[in-house]
Amino acid sequence: MGSLETERTVKGWAARDSSGVLSPYTYTLRNTGPEDVYIKVTCCGVCHTDLHQVKNDLGMSNYPMVPGHEVVGEVVEVGSEVTKFEVGDVVGVGCIVGCCRKCRPCTSDNEQYCNQKIWSYNHVYTDGKPTQGGFAESMVVDQKFVAKIPEGMVPEQAAPLLCAGVTVYSPLKHFGLKQSGLKGAILGLGGVGHMGVKIAKAMGHHVTVISSSEKKKVEALEHLGADDYLLSSDATRMQEAADSFDYVIDTVPVFHALEPCISLLKLDGKLILMGVINTPLQFVTPMLMLGRKIITGSFIGSMKEQEEMLEFCKEKKLSSMIEIIKMDYINEAFERLEKNDVRYRFVVDVEGSNL
Amino acid sequence: MGSLETERTVKGWAARDSSGVLSPYTYTLRNTGPEDVYIKVTCCGVCHTDLHQVKNDLGMSNYPMVPGHEVVGEVVEVGSEVTKFEVGDVVGVGCIVGCCRKCRPCTSDNEQYCNQKIWSYNHVYTDGKPTQGGFAESMVVDQKFVAKIPEGMVPEQAAPLLCAGVTVYSPLKHFGLKQSGLKGAILGLGGVGHMGVKIAKAMGHHVTVISSSEKKKVEALEHLGADDYLLSSDATRMQEAADSFDYVIDTVPVFHALEPCISLLKLDGKLILMGVINTPLQFVTPMLMLGRKIITGSFIGSMKEQEEMLEFCKEKKLSSMIEIIKMDYINEAFERLEKNDVRYRFVVDVEGSNL
Repeated sequence: MGSLETERTVKGWAARDSSGVLSPYTYTLRNTGPEDVYIKVTCCGVCHTDLHQVKNDLGMSNYPMVPGHEVVGEVVEVGSEVTKFEVGDVVGVGCIVGCCRKCRPCTSDNEQYCNQKIWSYNHVYTDGKPTQGGFAESMVVDQKFVAKIPEGMVPEQAAPLLCAGVTVYSPLKHFGLKQSGLKGAILGLGGVGHMGVKIAKAMGHHVTVISSSEKKKVEALEHLGADDYLLSSDATRMQEAADSFDYVIDTVPVFHALEPCISLLKLDGKLILMGVINTPLQFVTPMLMLGRKIITGSFIGSMKEQEEMLEFCKEKKLSSMIEIIKMDYINEAFERLEKNDVRYRFVVDVEGSNL
Repeated sequence: MGSLETERTVKGWAARDSSGVLSPYTYTLRNTGPEDVYIKVTCCGVCHTDLHQVKNDLGMSNYPMVPGHEVVGEVVEVGSEVTKFEVGDVVGVGCIVGCCRKCRPCTSDNEQYCNQKIWSYNHVYTDGKPTQGGFAESMVVDQKFVAKIPEGMVPEQAAPLLCAGVTVYSPLKHFGLKQSGLKGAILGLGGVGHMGVKIAKAMGHHVTVISSSEKKKVEALEHLGADDYLLSSDATRMQEAADSFDYVIDTVPVFHALEPCISLLKLDGKLILMGVINTPLQFVTPMLMLGRKIITGSFIGSMKEQEEMLEFCKEKKLSSMIEIIKMDYINEAFERLEKNDVRYRFVVDVEGSNL
């Protein structure tokens, strides 16, 4: 899979240590292997996980680290056995660039749950080299992990779909919650939450945003099209809403009480957790038992779902709400993201930045 | 629904206070209403919940209380509009004797989740009178909540199926876990757990009993037919078993760590909780997210599932393992049950007891 002689140098922006500050960094990419697609990056979304990774919040960061896993670019070269893509295609890369292809998840189109999956960055590829993400001029990615961006979709608006979008789409599809007429709630209105409202609305659901503050009420109802806004501290309205939701998508990434969410669910309702929280969450068994309610979690989506989701968004004329930035604004963007000061996703205009 | 003039006196055994001691008690039963079935009790299983109820462990006991919700008897009179049964039928009554018939659970054959369900005892019926259970000569029950015991089934062995049996059968059916070839685990080997092993085996599953002690190993493997026995304290074997189970049925009724159970589940595996535990149980979200695992709970089963389960048990020649007692042994039986000293269900021979 490529040799030193033929490897290409590429410019990106990398974190060098747990300060998380990004700065220009030059490294090499493997040559385009038979199954590989060589992609010139157009733009890349900024996910909250990137912030965790650059700052080593999860305790498993390796430096230098070029983050970015919501990547949109153009194919500039394809390997000899690549059948899915050709030069000039607009494509996307998400969180994962490798899997074992043999385990049960891999053989059932659930490769995102493969125990040997390879992350798009901060991981080691099959050739022993560190993987680096989309805050860079280009990437070389196995065709299995590349998705075609539907024609007519604006690259910057497609980028957040590749992580935030599929993260919401996948469980709704998997748990039989894609049909219209359902009543859903979205807890937390960040990058994933805002896509949750949009995708759930596009599926024809009645969508309630649940929040601990009134701050985002107008945006949720007027900009994102939510049907209702429920303040979690409003005991009367929370009580009135009990036993009425088919699902609650919980995007909150810090410890919080689950009881109010479980109460909202009707018989067979599903609480779908998406926030990585290493502090134990709690519940009492009768709350689940007396309504056969489900607590579950979901992690991004499969490549098959990625493609389905992109087609779904194209068909429904659905896009993300973003703030486009240049690469040299990334450190300020991370600071703002940490304060949740973004509506709703930063996307780096990589092509238009001077890397 | 009957008047004082026509009400019948009936002899049963009742708890009088939270000491939980049962003694003979005479009370009245309503006349047989148009939809009612008047049943002469043959025998009645003793469930752990009966113990909680007589001792007011759940804080909602009313006395005098005649427990018993695994009732098998013979129909001696039917109301004018009863179509399902005739005099002489052998029938069973479980945990519930009423529901609203209008709500979503009721109209979707999930009446066990109706918010207005009426418990077989320690509750108030639609006529304002307390409900009383199967530790008595007879009961009057709405035909909707009476199940026909399949021909050839021994009454004493059928009794525990009406609660313990359906409690296991219902979630396996509901969650798509009835097909053969699955790998399941049963945590806790009491009344429900032992039926869990038998029913899961009859469904064609590979069944592992998980326990905190070696005490029941021989019984589980040799008497109940389990395929494996896993000591929860055996870290090596628990590790080897990780990611391999389609489901874990957790019957433990006291606080315990969920993490070992969740670890055992494969992708999309289900942890089904059946113990009423008011101390919060805990989990961290990545354990669910990175395998789309499910924590859920289930409560008895519907009448439709009750009938299905009885037919299933008949077809598979499956019965409970019981110890038959007389009514005047009930207080000693409760003491032994509290120490988990029963293999695996006490059944009171009501008909053969001198009430």
